Amino acid sequence: MKVKVLRLGHRKKRDLRLTTHVCLTARALGANEAILSGEKDKSVMDSVKDVSKRWGGKFKISYEKNWKKTLKNYEVVHLTMYGEPVQNKINEIRKSKKDKLIVVGSEKVPKEIYNLADYNIAVTNQPHSEVAALSIFLHELFQGKELKNKFKNAEIKIKPKKQGKKVIRSGDTENIFKRIIKKFN
Amino acid sequence: MKVKVLRLGHRKKRDLRLTTHVCLTARALGANEAILSGEKDKSVMDSVKDVSKRWGGKFKISYEKNWKKTLKNYEVVHLTMYGEPVQNKINEIRKSKKDKLIVVGSEKVPKEIYNLADYNIAVTNQPHSEVAALSIFLHELFQGKELKNKFKNAEIKIKPKKQGKKVIRSGDTENIFKRIIKKFN
Repeated sequence: MKVKVLRLGHRKKRDLRLTTHVCLTARALGANEAILSGEKDKSVMDSVKDVSKRWGGKFKISYEKNWKKTLKNYEVVHLTMYGEPVQNKINEIRKSKKDKLIVVGSEKVPKEIYNLADYNIAVTNQPHSEVAALSIFLHELFQGKELKNKFKNAEIKIKPKKQGKKVIRSGDTENIFKRIIKKFN
Repeated sequence: MKVKVLRLGHRKKRDLRLTTHVCLTARALGANEAILSGEKDKSVMDSVKDVSKRWGGKFKISYEKNWKKTLKNYEVVHLTMYGEPVQNKINEIRKSKKDKLIVVGSEKVPKEIYNLADYNIAVTNQPHSEVAALSIFLHELFQGKELKNKFKNAEIKIKPKKQGKKVIRSGDTENIFKRIIKKFN
């Protein structure tokens, strides 16, 4: 099952950080691809590509002006505070095994999406954040397994620690140097 | 068990929207209070207060310049990509029943927090979003029950729908008018 995330109505500058968070969340929590619509924004695309390159995995990002084109061939799940509770619908959505397109809007969403979507799904019917809605949805869809995903060919990795930070860089010159010194001591 | 969320190092303007998303996510997903630290920012405080007033419930927001003061009397959980996997630690954290302070940083986090926290917890060791990390953490802490929370004394509510939008306003004049007309027809 492929899972793509469509970010509707991106506005340059204003949405820069939130759209970046949407895309990085999609990547970290197991989606395969993000598609941006709205204003074209090289800086979002570049920073997501940069993270994907350095942190590994196969996550893709693309831009599509005509967002309706992207709905074809997918089961479309529109995340909206007006929709049906995620906890009532997630089993049905997961079972279908169809490739999914998860749609998250920015502040204003074209009305048509409510009818074009196969599901309108709410993560609570309270106002909060498209990043939060996407997180909970992906976490429920993948049943927590996404937290253990491996990202292959990473240049940079973190070793989980109780305290402090431990970063491992592939070909890390400092570590190589230390190892050589150890060998000769 | 009380759950508060501390947003460290807020920067006015730059973090306006993300900090607002952090606070609204905290509210929607069952936390009792948000505490802001960093630059004082009336517009974030006001918009969160406004949502709480209109959408109901008892969520609070406050500002504290000296963030270290807020750690006292709480079990402190710092969300960081460098920490231990949430899935390995959440049962232990939930079991303790102690009041929690969940700390989410902005771009730069004071080093001390890694030692002052009882737990440094990672929602994946990948770069993504403090809003995503907070969402998954709260969802795991409350085991999904938070999605069914009721917000009392709301002026505005949503009736979940398969398609479209249905908003209910308490004392909504249009609806009252319709009911009166119906009665006399």
